Amino acid sequence: MLVLFLWATAIRAAEPLPSWNDTAPKKAIITFVEKVTREGSPDFVPAPERVAVFDNDGTLWSEQPIYTQFLFVLDRVKTTAPQHPEWKTNEPFATVLRGDLKGLAAFGVKGMLELTEATHSGMSTEEFKKLVKDWLATARHPKTGRLYTEMVYQPMLELLVYLRANGFKTFIVSGGGVEFMRPWTEKVYGIPPEQVIGSSGKLKFEFQDGKPALMKLPEVDFIDDKEGKALGIENHIGRRPIAAFGNSDGDQQMLEWTTAGGGARFALLVHHDDAEREWAYDRESKVGRLDKAWDEAKEKGWTVVSMKGDWKTIFPK
Amino acid sequence: MLVLFLWATAIRAAEPLPSWNDTAPKKAIITFVEKVTREGSPDFVPAPERVAVFDNDGTLWSEQPIYTQFLFVLDRVKTTAPQHPEWKTNEPFATVLRGDLKGLAAFGVKGMLELTEATHSGMSTEEFKKLVKDWLATARHPKTGRLYTEMVYQPMLELLVYLRANGFKTFIVSGGGVEFMRPWTEKVYGIPPEQVIGSSGKLKFEFQDGKPALMKLPEVDFIDDKEGKALGIENHIGRRPIAAFGNSDGDQQMLEWTTAGGGARFALLVHHDDAEREWAYDRESKVGRLDKAWDEAKEKGWTVVSMKGDWKTIFPK
Repeated sequence: MLVLFLWATAIRAAEPLPSWNDTAPKKAIITFVEKVTREGSPDFVPAPERVAVFDNDGTLWSEQPIYTQFLFVLDRVKTTAPQHPEWKTNEPFATVLRGDLKGLAAFGVKGMLELTEATHSGMSTEEFKKLVKDWLATARHPKTGRLYTEMVYQPMLELLVYLRANGFKTFIVSGGGVEFMRPWTEKVYGIPPEQVIGSSGKLKFEFQDGKPALMKLPEVDFIDDKEGKALGIENHIGRRPIAAFGNSDGDQQMLEWTTAGGGARFALLVHHDDAEREWAYDRESKVGRLDKAWDEAKEKGWTVVSMKGDWKTIFPK
Repeated sequence: MLVLFLWATAIRAAEPLPSWNDTAPKKAIITFVEKVTREGSPDFVPAPERVAVFDNDGTLWSEQPIYTQFLFVLDRVKTTAPQHPEWKTNEPFATVLRGDLKGLAAFGVKGMLELTEATHSGMSTEEFKKLVKDWLATARHPKTGRLYTEMVYQPMLELLVYLRANGFKTFIVSGGGVEFMRPWTEKVYGIPPEQVIGSSGKLKFEFQDGKPALMKLPEVDFIDDKEGKALGIENHIGRRPIAAFGNSDGDQQMLEWTTAGGGARFALLVHHDDAEREWAYDRESKVGRLDKAWDEAKEKGWTVVSMKGDWKTIFPK
């Protein structure tokens, strides 16, 4: 505990957010954190109420050309195809096995869900966690060649550390599958499994060889996106965050819910405008579309981060 | 942080669990905690994995003659009856309004759910939290005359403090409504809302006067009881507890799931056998029945606490 104390002091003493340029977003973050942590300040918030929520895909790590979890799904279809001879003719599996990713797009969200349910069921939660860990240990991004866990944003890692050093409790609130994130968020982000909220499938408690197991069923239980993010926060945290960080229209309701509470509030959107160092996309993108939430940010004065202008580096060195 | 450090040291130095007699359960608890916290011990568990889960009704506070939340439901029916003239003739509301609690029993679980849904909906989550707080501030138990939050078990409060002083994270996993518990568990048990798991109703995100609200719908979303407790733990915590504390058959699967993990595990059931200081009930009770879980405890060597023989005091002085 004493070591932790000294370490936290060192973090506070060092200049925070070194990978952020000295532009408006960095200043806005620091101003907010200082006013809610200064005792006697009219905006002071007691530590237990310093809840900060972060979207994952596109906010903490990259989401192009498609969500990482979906690349995992495609790999699982290929890996398990020998046990599913019917996939050679059944769609959308046949299209995946032919490697026709453009053709796959025609199956839309329904097709994605069908592939996800098929590859995320029929095993226990513990078996699934091992599949995720094993895949992330070796799979590499088609463009950068990096491990996916190396495609996290260095400035956001610093922000997580800075907030926690100032007494915040940091949560992930993501449309991604909760069981796809929990095996690695503690190591990569310092966010333990119990602070990860996400979409989930139904589970069944049953005995196997005399031991209880939680089996994953091929049925969606909860979609943690848009309105679902506000519901997920209430269901899991039970108090309203004072700070919310996102990057797309899927995060709009989370930012609305956070900022509508009384007292000081902070909302931030990451704008992907750096085609050279990452990707550039917003209003027209199928993945991580930023359109309505961007308009609301302009109207309400939410902080918008330009990855190109506000971040010195994107990925960890 | 330094103050916390010194305080934690003081707690560790003092004799733990002062309201527990020096009988087998106290010894079993201390033996378990010492072996999982001693570095180098073959049973050592790193602090982040020291997850302990507690049932609430009958484990942390009294549940007789009926669950406290249901007494709140009955009071809500009476209080809001003027806005529901139809309740004078509609059952089971009419029976409640006549004060016929024996007659109410005939409506069974279905009747309880119907009354709960009717009184736990039609308002926002924030309005509901205020109703709960206001009710608990004044409502008194029909037999003891105490506030319900004074009918918590002193030995269990000490156990929560002892576990947290040893690096455990303590969670509630209760069949009770999550929104009925969260407004007071932090103050009474030191357990923050985000560590409370319970049954829940459906919510709807909507705008009211231009501000977002989470409205409570008259529909059950999740029942956190029996198998549901293992599912609730996986859904909210995402890792398996190493210690579980309950008192009834509703806790059986939670204890099974906890103890089936690898390494040192601890399971405890509170047996209500003290008719003089609290209540005595087990195999035949409609509320908090302890029957199958008791048999499994005997078979597997789970710790069973006799409130009469193992606890010096029941309620806080």
